[in-house]
Amino acid sequence: MTSTLVLLRHGESTWNAENLFTGWVDVPLSEKGVAEAKRGGELLRESGVLPDVLHTSLLRRAISTANIALDVADRHWIPVRRDWRLNERHYGALQGKNKKQTLEAYGEDQFMLWRRSYDTPPPEIELGSEFSQDADPRYAGLGADLPRTECLKDVVARLLPYWESAIVPDLQAGRTVLVAAHGNSLRALVKHLDGISDGDIAGLNIPTGIPLRYDLDADLKPTNPGGTYLDPEAAATAAAAVANQGR
Amino acid sequence: MTSTLVLLRHGESTWNAENLFTGWVDVPLSEKGVAEAKRGGELLRESGVLPDVLHTSLLRRAISTANIALDVADRHWIPVRRDWRLNERHYGALQGKNKKQTLEAYGEDQFMLWRRSYDTPPPEIELGSEFSQDADPRYAGLGADLPRTECLKDVVARLLPYWESAIVPDLQAGRTVLVAAHGNSLRALVKHLDGISDGDIAGLNIPTGIPLRYDLDADLKPTNPGGTYLDPEAAATAAAAVANQGR
Repeated sequence: MTSTLVLLRHGESTWNAENLFTGWVDVPLSEKGVAEAKRGGELLRESGVLPDVLHTSLLRRAISTANIALDVADRHWIPVRRDWRLNERHYGALQGKNKKQTLEAYGEDQFMLWRRSYDTPPPEIELGSEFSQDADPRYAGLGADLPRTECLKDVVARLLPYWESAIVPDLQAGRTVLVAAHGNSLRALVKHLDGISDGDIAGLNIPTGIPLRYDLDADLKPTNPGGTYLDPEAAATAAAAVANQGR
Repeated sequence: MTSTLVLLRHGESTWNAENLFTGWVDVPLSEKGVAEAKRGGELLRESGVLPDVLHTSLLRRAISTANIALDVADRHWIPVRRDWRLNERHYGALQGKNKKQTLEAYGEDQFMLWRRSYDTPPPEIELGSEFSQDADPRYAGLGADLPRTECLKDVVARLLPYWESAIVPDLQAGRTVLVAAHGNSLRALVKHLDGISDGDIAGLNIPTGIPLRYDLDADLKPTNPGGTYLDPEAAATAAAAVANQGR
């Protein structure tokens, strides 16, 4: 038996547009982001890749992207599951900071280490500070699981239990699963699906708003390694642009 | 133990605006409906009535209303459950027909019987016709449960199993429950909650976009019979307008 998994990175947020580290700060889509979400829905509809169930993070930019895309694809009525384990990487003390200023203040090496190393998290965020989530009711049940910073390795570690317990059962039931999430939670998932090494994952960027389809075999291994973007040309252009962020 | 139930009728749809019988036809919100949904979210936020879980129908106008209102109330991240049993009353062969023309064609008595009698459904819709749902994938699992027309009594009968099996457990777990649904599915629920007679329910209208809060005791009986609108003045004005629909 084969199953279909569709990954969708949220459209541009207002903080993407302002070049700020966002992480778990719950910012809305920009107008461009709304347009990207609509385009994502058109691609689903035109390709006939119609999700049976949606998994999202607890963050507005992923939730809105999914709501908009599914409405356009006439699949607004499918069941929804949400979990913090699909959230963006927690950016620690960098949350709310300008990327360009951070690059200038700390230099290229430290900047790229925080952005792209697999296992070096940024400094921890201060509890009670403006961009901390320790008082956010949606995370009230997390206790010690609430991160104060994360590297990609941490994201992989907290994502995989949700993959196994919530997404895999939907796939095994033959459902077409849409995961609407974030640059780094989707990189963590792709790393697992495609068996990408800790070193090579640094070079992988996932563009916003373009559904990425994986066809999975009975062992949940991709029969199309790397997946298939529903708009390959736009994906190639966008991936190049993401790689230059913060420059 | 007490629990809180909030009912929210979707904002104006494009077919409300055109004065057409809608039922299970999946039309979007009008611009006015979007504004009503935003206002509903503001009322939730301002009153501090913050839902922990959302129940919706499978129809776009209720789903969009909830998405918009919860986003405004900063509760976009709560769990969602959807079920056809919260859908609007199926209007049978009247779906897609103009209310004023129907009134003129069939006369006041027949028109009001279809609109307001408790147990007289309109004629059945023809399978395969333009506004029938028999080929709609979201209802593929319903089999013989798929209605071809409904009176309010039918709505009560198909709603209550969902109330008991899905909504009551959330209330008993102490959650504040938001039900975003439709004029007639909410009338059916209010009839049950307030113990309204088959005759008296005809006179009850629920305005669009104004959250209606019920405080329920341990036996799920309202301690505020009739509920409390979060904007009572707007509710009174709107209820009078609904009663004049089709005139």
